[in-house]
Amino acid sequence: MTSPLRLGIAGLGTVGTGLLQVLEAHGPRLTQTLGRAIEVTGISARSRDKDRGVPLRSLRWFDDAVALARDPQIDVFVELIGGDEGIARQAVETALRAKKHVVTANKALLARHGVSLARLAESNGVALNFEAAVAGGIPIIKTIREALLGNELHRVYGILNGTCNYILTTMQDEGRPFAEVLKEAQEKGYAEADPTFDIGGFDTAHKLALLTSLAFGTEVAFGEAHIEGIEKITPADIEAADDLGYRIKLLGVALNTPSGIEQRVHPAMVPKPSAIAEVSGVTNGIAINGDYVGDLLLVGPGAGARATASAVASDIGDLARGLVLPPFITPVAQLEPYRRATLGKHHGAYYVRLTVHDRPGAMAAIAKRMADQDVSLESIVQRRPRKALPGIGARPAPGSLTPVVLITHETTEEAMRRALAAIAADGKVAEPPQMIRIEKL
Amino acid sequence: MTSPLRLGIAGLGTVGTGLLQVLEAHGPRLTQTLGRAIEVTGISARSRDKDRGVPLRSLRWFDDAVALARDPQIDVFVELIGGDEGIARQAVETALRAKKHVVTANKALLARHGVSLARLAESNGVALNFEAAVAGGIPIIKTIREALLGNELHRVYGILNGTCNYILTTMQDEGRPFAEVLKEAQEKGYAEADPTFDIGGFDTAHKLALLTSLAFGTEVAFGEAHIEGIEKITPADIEAADDLGYRIKLLGVALNTPSGIEQRVHPAMVPKPSAIAEVSGVTNGIAINGDYVGDLLLVGPGAGARATASAVASDIGDLARGLVLPPFITPVAQLEPYRRATLGKHHGAYYVRLTVHDRPGAMAAIAKRMADQDVSLESIVQRRPRKALPGIGARPAPGSLTPVVLITHETTEEAMRRALAAIAADGKVAEPPQMIRIEKL
Repeated sequence: MTSPLRLGIAGLGTVGTGLLQVLEAHGPRLTQTLGRAIEVTGISARSRDKDRGVPLRSLRWFDDAVALARDPQIDVFVELIGGDEGIARQAVETALRAKKHVVTANKALLARHGVSLARLAESNGVALNFEAAVAGGIPIIKTIREALLGNELHRVYGILNGTCNYILTTMQDEGRPFAEVLKEAQEKGYAEADPTFDIGGFDTAHKLALLTSLAFGTEVAFGEAHIEGIEKITPADIEAADDLGYRIKLLGVALNTPSGIEQRVHPAMVPKPSAIAEVSGVTNGIAINGDYVGDLLLVGPGAGARATASAVASDIGDLARGLVLPPFITPVAQLEPYRRATLGKHHGAYYVRLTVHDRPGAMAAIAKRMADQDVSLESIVQRRPRKALPGIGARPAPGSLTPVVLITHETTEEAMRRALAAIAADGKVAEPPQMIRIEKL
Repeated sequence: MTSPLRLGIAGLGTVGTGLLQVLEAHGPRLTQTLGRAIEVTGISARSRDKDRGVPLRSLRWFDDAVALARDPQIDVFVELIGGDEGIARQAVETALRAKKHVVTANKALLARHGVSLARLAESNGVALNFEAAVAGGIPIIKTIREALLGNELHRVYGILNGTCNYILTTMQDEGRPFAEVLKEAQEKGYAEADPTFDIGGFDTAHKLALLTSLAFGTEVAFGEAHIEGIEKITPADIEAADDLGYRIKLLGVALNTPSGIEQRVHPAMVPKPSAIAEVSGVTNGIAINGDYVGDLLLVGPGAGARATASAVASDIGDLARGLVLPPFITPVAQLEPYRRATLGKHHGAYYVRLTVHDRPGAMAAIAKRMADQDVSLESIVQRRPRKALPGIGARPAPGSLTPVVLITHETTEEAMRRALAAIAADGKVAEPPQMIRIEKL
């Protein structure tokens, strides 16, 4: 039997503690399966005394994660500290330079410094594994890096943030407004005290940047993503979507087009019934399209200590088995520069919700603005709130506000934007138009 | 750069031809990613002259697959011949003995001889990879063997046969009977001329036997599976399921229970909405439950030349990267003997459809038979066909037949069987009771 694989674990929050639990619970089986033992030979965290429910007794303690990263008694440095700069970055760089394999769940670090860290890993002949950084327990990195090897990938998209999906699902199920559901999610611990990072789409964009690079062999380009959050989604949108046969999901979409790469994060309408529309609550789901495999969909827990620890264990298992791959599959020297497709050229159908001053001619003016941009309409629905008071269906009083929902046929983003700008400028609408892209599955 | 990995491909049906296409289309990228070339150095098939749309020009031709299997100029023998005995088995055994890695899509061969072939592979220090044998393009084997390493798996279940799922989906969508849809599926090429193997559940059972062994570390035990097909599912069942909030799917279910392993293939009711209920047409879907990862679901093409070739390419890629694992993860010597759980002890809820002679007292007698076995009922619905003629809802004439649908609370299989046997013996029903297990997700 080969000598044990020795781990130094930095960061003992929920994931770090979860990893210690996995190794404790499944140690003998892992040893048997891998043909070698996994040994934790050093740990580092902020507080040594905190009770984590796991015995740390015999483990060598490091106050300094960087010192652990270069410790001669470790083979693998497991970075579970978090943060895209500071100690996490410094420790990972130190470990790679010291020719230690690195396993990390740190998507922010990789989204910002993935290419330089991958270069460092490759030049030192070690691995930089990050299965846990994207979609928690879902083995999406392994799937792209290994299982889909025989494919040219065309599109990757998914529900990558559990907080947003929980909020949208709850808004859907309970017909409640965004702010109220967010507050409840914060109370339940499903959303952070400062939720901007999640609900603004930035967390999704970090993960998407990694998937994009893996899928298309291009440099990680988090800064090139188009990012919209879910803050502006209203119960009226969710209700209209439902009536029209859609669900609203925050998607991260990476698309390889002849004119470059579309990397976008935004609320999108997906048709129900479809498996992705059924991905509910904090669950994540990722769809991949490859030229040979066709369409694959992976659904599972996108976060949580135990699921994330499962993904970290997978990365460690690969190292125990001697599998050392370039972090983004394509060696860094051969990654192509990122070429951004203009979002204006994006082709798709759109949902538009307008709050129209109910004046004669308003609808005609709106329809004309669409026609001016060659946007043709699949449907126009003048809507009343579902739970309307008596009087529903009656002709509204002149001067009142009418919600109008449009679904367009496929058109370009720039045509849509011009049409909506013209409509807004006409003064026929009381609020800025709401526009949601319809994602063709 | 390492020397090329040399393949001998036996069998040039749709999958073999698809594999040649993958290697042709993505050869340079594969070489770059793997750091070594993949070369086809020998092929074997029944007919040399058939036009397969792929140039076979320079390839060395073998009339005899067994000769190819021991050819010194190959490193990997790719078996795409099919069949659980005869030439396929002989060639695979020859290749393993000659210390060639084997990649195969042959589920029947592995379901019958998996353990002895795995032993042969291990003792010769070579791999026996079979990603393509289960669920086509879905990377389920890699997921269990590698990604879920840190988990004890509790349950694996899935839709593993595209033909059955296509038939059930079409019956659902079009309200048509089994025999008619089967005939159409045969005409379209979605079902074989002799469809028994698919619709009888045997193909699903082959795949399930492999998943069971991988998931639970037990010997492959195809012969221990409980197998029912979809032949008896009627539009009345599908309609009743729909009304009650379910879809009917042919599932393969492997469950690790304290009293042994349940390995069963049968039509099952799954709740809609759920992602597995949305797996439609020829698509496959597999759900796994692990103690750390929680619930994962993988959805994708379960068959087809291109998707299957993608899976074969994944296995070849692993070999090019030097990854050689025991075929069933657990080395054969440590596989546990299969311990079969008595299906009678199975706990679950049941759907029952009875065709009742509409006589006074019939319902009371049925309810009593259930109560005698401690089976409590969640709902009882006397049904009329959905598209009934005028007179719907009217009290039926005495002596006519009434369809009655029952949903039970959770009970045991043996209690259910005893209750249904008693009901049948009472002579109050005109047909044998229809019973479908409800699968808790």
